[in-house]
Amino acid sequence: MARGGGGSLAHLLATLLLFLLLATPLAVGASEAEVDLAPAEGVSEAVAPDADAQQQHLLPRPLVIELPSARAAEPDADADADAVPTDVRCASWRLAAEANNLAPWKAVPPECVPHVRDYVTGAAYRSDLELVARESAAYARAALPLGDDGRDAWVFDVDETLLSNLPYYADHGYGAELFDHHRFDEWVERGEAAAIPSSLKLYNEVRELGFKTFLLTGRSEGHRGVTVENLNKQGFHDWEKLILRAAGDRKKTATVYKSEKRKEMEEEGYRILGNSGDQWSDLLGSSMSARSFKLPNPMYYIP
Amino acid sequence: MARGGGGSLAHLLATLLLFLLLATPLAVGASEAEVDLAPAEGVSEAVAPDADAQQQHLLPRPLVIELPSARAAEPDADADADAVPTDVRCASWRLAAEANNLAPWKAVPPECVPHVRDYVTGAAYRSDLELVARESAAYARAALPLGDDGRDAWVFDVDETLLSNLPYYADHGYGAELFDHHRFDEWVERGEAAAIPSSLKLYNEVRELGFKTFLLTGRSEGHRGVTVENLNKQGFHDWEKLILRAAGDRKKTATVYKSEKRKEMEEEGYRILGNSGDQWSDLLGSSMSARSFKLPNPMYYIP
Repeated sequence: MARGGGGSLAHLLATLLLFLLLATPLAVGASEAEVDLAPAEGVSEAVAPDADAQQQHLLPRPLVIELPSARAAEPDADADADAVPTDVRCASWRLAAEANNLAPWKAVPPECVPHVRDYVTGAAYRSDLELVARESAAYARAALPLGDDGRDAWVFDVDETLLSNLPYYADHGYGAELFDHHRFDEWVERGEAAAIPSSLKLYNEVRELGFKTFLLTGRSEGHRGVTVENLNKQGFHDWEKLILRAAGDRKKTATVYKSEKRKEMEEEGYRILGNSGDQWSDLLGSSMSARSFKLPNPMYYIP
Repeated sequence: MARGGGGSLAHLLATLLLFLLLATPLAVGASEAEVDLAPAEGVSEAVAPDADAQQQHLLPRPLVIELPSARAAEPDADADADAVPTDVRCASWRLAAEANNLAPWKAVPPECVPHVRDYVTGAAYRSDLELVARESAAYARAALPLGDDGRDAWVFDVDETLLSNLPYYADHGYGAELFDHHRFDEWVERGEAAAIPSSLKLYNEVRELGFKTFLLTGRSEGHRGVTVENLNKQGFHDWEKLILRAAGDRKKTATVYKSEKRKEMEEEGYRILGNSGDQWSDLLGSSMSARSFKLPNPMYYIP
């Protein structure tokens, strides 16, 4: 950086107004487009790079774009790093993941598995979750619904945001293993995921402030019953809508699927003021929330 | 989260195409607008909230919006947190800052000053910087300029991105003190800021790959001479352009000023493929880079 002049509130307002102007075109024509443009399934990696490179040259866009990197930098990728203790390198890897600096990754780097295990089972993960929840609540109070039309909305992701699947990941190496849909579905069907306490508190607080809550999850429609039951048993009630992945959404990335669903919410007249999720794909894309909160999750990455 | 189906490369392409469609309207009409709409300097905080609340209800927008929170959550804000050691709470505060979860803050929370000092003077900060540089370089190689028109660009912020002002912040409590423009300018005029080694390596690597480098800094035009000299002395050469804040930019937030300058770059035909900065305001806004990299900085926050 280096700083500019003063008048911070005036500048905040100017920034808000700037984004207001930008927001309108942003919402137009998003969700239909990528369905038509999506290349056929199974485009081979050998064919794609050229088209890919062409497109990437054309488009200025945010933090979302995931090019197939030549190879992602891993904690131990550099010779210079040899002198750095593993725990420091793994803390760097975790920080880079949370700040969305990493290329898409499929499993926790092997040397960092113990670090991730200690983190998610210890005080730091809980503390990180609690601080993000407190910041979210402070923002919710400041952004308090003013109208009485009941259209102010807060979007919550479910897994690792409202509910914790730690027992499942404990059985699968805390992110060391490649994701296995079938096994995870079996876990989901048990309906035993526990509430993340700070998220439950935040959930109730935003509801009491007058926000409508939308639960937007990558779980599939077939798991609606068990998901409702699990959420209720854990103290989550009175959501406006629980949105699960329909058959037609199955092949979309989370970023695209969730953007489409947020767009539908906007078209129904909701104003999305807050969004809480453990993945950047819960938060980025189009029809984005006025403010987004990234909960920590070093165990997996969803594009 | 919970995951969807397969076909990850196809999905990446679909996502890229979606953003291509979204990118075009995004760039239109940004930079002039907020100049006209910016409220007069010195709008009092007592007057603003209503207008502010009105606007925030209208606009769906990213991670950027900074409402004046009722009060920002601090590491010690919650009674539940008492049992958590200070260092864990401060690590949570730092993580939340890096993931852009915090409300704007003016100084490091007093109890976290020792934590920040130990971090920035120790191995962890260096390791964090190095990992982000390696991820950036991996992406740069994958996004390699293909055309020979010399229009592929990488934007670098200067302070705490290419050059380190640690000696200055060491003399001012590592972020404990409110920012003092005059004192910081005196430091800048000395021209003694040191290169961040991992950033120098990245800078040279992206140049060698064929990117044009743009240095976009909040430093003012009056510091051009000393900034050029300082950068050269530290090994940074052959940039396409060094953009400093002109008198007319002084009252803009960094987000607005830098968005405008990126827009000018695009209008000149450059494709911004990468952007490296230690502040979210280096990276967010409009005319955003295809991919952005957030370098760590727990010492100050620029809106």
